[in-house]
Amino acid sequence: MNAEIIAAGSELLTAERVDTNSLYLTAELNNLGVEVTAKAVIGDDRDRLAEAVRAALSRSAIVILSGGLGPTEDDVTREAVALALDRKLVFHPEIAAQIEARFARMKRKMVEVNRRQAFVIEGADVLPNDRGTAPGQWVEESGVVILLPGPPHELKAMFERQCLPRLRRLVPDHSIRTLLLRVTGMPESDLDQLISPVYKKYLNPVTTILAGNGDIQVHLRARCASVGEAEALLAEVGAPIEALLGDKIYSRNGDPLEVVVGEMLHKAHATVAVAESLTGGMLGERFTTVPGSSRYFLGGFLTYSNAMKVELLGVDPQLLAHFGAVSSETAEAMAAGARRLTKATYALAVTGVAGPESGEDAAPVGTVYVALADPEKTVAVHRQFLGDRTRIRMFTTQMALDVLRRRLMGRAG
Amino acid sequence: MNAEIIAAGSELLTAERVDTNSLYLTAELNNLGVEVTAKAVIGDDRDRLAEAVRAALSRSAIVILSGGLGPTEDDVTREAVALALDRKLVFHPEIAAQIEARFARMKRKMVEVNRRQAFVIEGADVLPNDRGTAPGQWVEESGVVILLPGPPHELKAMFERQCLPRLRRLVPDHSIRTLLLRVTGMPESDLDQLISPVYKKYLNPVTTILAGNGDIQVHLRARCASVGEAEALLAEVGAPIEALLGDKIYSRNGDPLEVVVGEMLHKAHATVAVAESLTGGMLGERFTTVPGSSRYFLGGFLTYSNAMKVELLGVDPQLLAHFGAVSSETAEAMAAGARRLTKATYALAVTGVAGPESGEDAAPVGTVYVALADPEKTVAVHRQFLGDRTRIRMFTTQMALDVLRRRLMGRAG
Repeated sequence: MNAEIIAAGSELLTAERVDTNSLYLTAELNNLGVEVTAKAVIGDDRDRLAEAVRAALSRSAIVILSGGLGPTEDDVTREAVALALDRKLVFHPEIAAQIEARFARMKRKMVEVNRRQAFVIEGADVLPNDRGTAPGQWVEESGVVILLPGPPHELKAMFERQCLPRLRRLVPDHSIRTLLLRVTGMPESDLDQLISPVYKKYLNPVTTILAGNGDIQVHLRARCASVGEAEALLAEVGAPIEALLGDKIYSRNGDPLEVVVGEMLHKAHATVAVAESLTGGMLGERFTTVPGSSRYFLGGFLTYSNAMKVELLGVDPQLLAHFGAVSSETAEAMAAGARRLTKATYALAVTGVAGPESGEDAAPVGTVYVALADPEKTVAVHRQFLGDRTRIRMFTTQMALDVLRRRLMGRAG
Repeated sequence: MNAEIIAAGSELLTAERVDTNSLYLTAELNNLGVEVTAKAVIGDDRDRLAEAVRAALSRSAIVILSGGLGPTEDDVTREAVALALDRKLVFHPEIAAQIEARFARMKRKMVEVNRRQAFVIEGADVLPNDRGTAPGQWVEESGVVILLPGPPHELKAMFERQCLPRLRRLVPDHSIRTLLLRVTGMPESDLDQLISPVYKKYLNPVTTILAGNGDIQVHLRARCASVGEAEALLAEVGAPIEALLGDKIYSRNGDPLEVVVGEMLHKAHATVAVAESLTGGMLGERFTTVPGSSRYFLGGFLTYSNAMKVELLGVDPQLLAHFGAVSSETAEAMAAGARRLTKATYALAVTGVAGPESGEDAAPVGTVYVALADPEKTVAVHRQFLGDRTRIRMFTTQMALDVLRRRLMGRAG
């Protein structure tokens, strides 16, 4: 069974606001086994909104609208749905009385304009609103159209108390289960080439691949008659995909790489320090995004200039002059220096050219060296990235975290 | 002139993700005087997407699609738009060659699946992608349909370089002008209380206040018959607002605080270093986000643990024990240490409790000290922030940059 969500309100079409009610509604609908197939935001325009409702209802069994139930002229959802379904709006004196009583409890008088909120689409069930003046509405037609208020705390309370019980009776017993694999260290196109022969054999589960900043998420969504069936199907399709991706998979529960590496460090009773050139603090920032990271993250050095590499980390100026700041030798000397000074188990160093212009070293933009020092050895890895300054810096931190992850797994960096 | 924005991608129909590209696109379209009247998110479904394109084009002069231009099977935007417009897809060998060359620059071989990205809608203009493999497309029909890649940094670069110049020729009059003031160092509600008596007198310009992470943007949008009129109106309304906000305004051209402070440092031929505790690298990261920041940013220390504060920065262990890591005394010692070791003109130090739990110092979550050392003195400032770990860290970097900005203006930190 499919649903579409329509948010009404011109303020959601500005450059500053997004509709977040749909995220909550999507989570609840997915739990019921209902797929959300489209979302829309429409301004305060009755005819456009009516058209959107009509189109959604022609495709989907459930259409949920949020917002536009307030008392003012620009609240047009009631009128739009009535128009879309070709039904009348009927005044309900008992709703007006309830709104009036609510105002009285706040020691205020109901203003005339609030009477607009007492109009109900012919044949609709009224959904009481415990947290505001605007009642919701539940209308059955070819499918179900649900009108909910826009304020998130009103919408959530109404959906949970009034809509979920009704939807449970309506929705056939389907269950959706998801497998999420997070992968790093390979381009999206290589990954797809590798695993598409597996997932393309199945229409269910649906596979989605999402990539950005050196991170790939592989989502498998199984939709079956029971939770058990969905889980069995995910296991069947997931197993060969996991086998193909192997240790490129770093997370199976959605955790980002800094959390995964942090847990590995913590379990190993190990500590880490960083020495950053082109990332200027972004690597330390990622480590310390994680609450409790002080258990394993000791600190580090931002050695943006050559002088700082020499003075703070003790990199040999002759080595620096000979190989340049962007070299595996300098990266290794930085890592060794950071480890010696902090006494951390592991030290990660990154050096490279983030752009937009190439530096004095004449290494091209996107050249990156990551070095890892541990009690036994110090090894540097080279990579060439494409893109702008932000992308190159993000890829570099992802690469550095992955070099450490692989070392902690007992494999070569 | 109206526009609609359609984001393609099943991942944007999950409970976790929202489409944020549309916010950027909306801001740019509004600047041109184009109103966004509807937005939609459609899953990876060719026929549904085609239907959405057809419907949008029947209502609006400009339809922008984002996403679904990748190399994989679930990237269906090209096919969907071709279907909607009843046009063929044509293979462009020169695009395939460019993608192949891009792979070659990364010392990799193009995989077969990337050939999908070389298909172009008949009659469309190809929009080159400097930052990824997927080219965009510009198709003129009854209106304009624009296909952009989903990754925000690719989309932004392509829209700015390829689409804005074309749209400027297309959109009738340029009668919208905007004044943007960026403000820091006061809460949004105080700011609104201060300036609303001015802006509420005007329906035109429209005033929007947008706040987040210690940063406030005040947008005034004037829409007039001519550019001259719009500019005169902005000057009239902007002047009293600027007078009220005074030196809390740090930027009038949209530049973020790290760019403003960077330019002040560069003009003063001064350098800066950092010593970070709770921010773990975020302050250095913000300084070095700016291209060319190596002219004034020397480097710094991530002293997350107490031992690192002593060993790397030379903070007196007795002072640390007596006042605690989260104190103005420790912040000042950190700043003085960083300045001494790097020989920078200015050193900024931050220490505090980012949470979620309070540390051994028993200072409450959100307690922050920022110290600034310069050739004459070292002074610490205390602030108490509310919110989660990320918010507190963001506020802290904003506060630190502003402390330096005010010192560089010749005022007390």
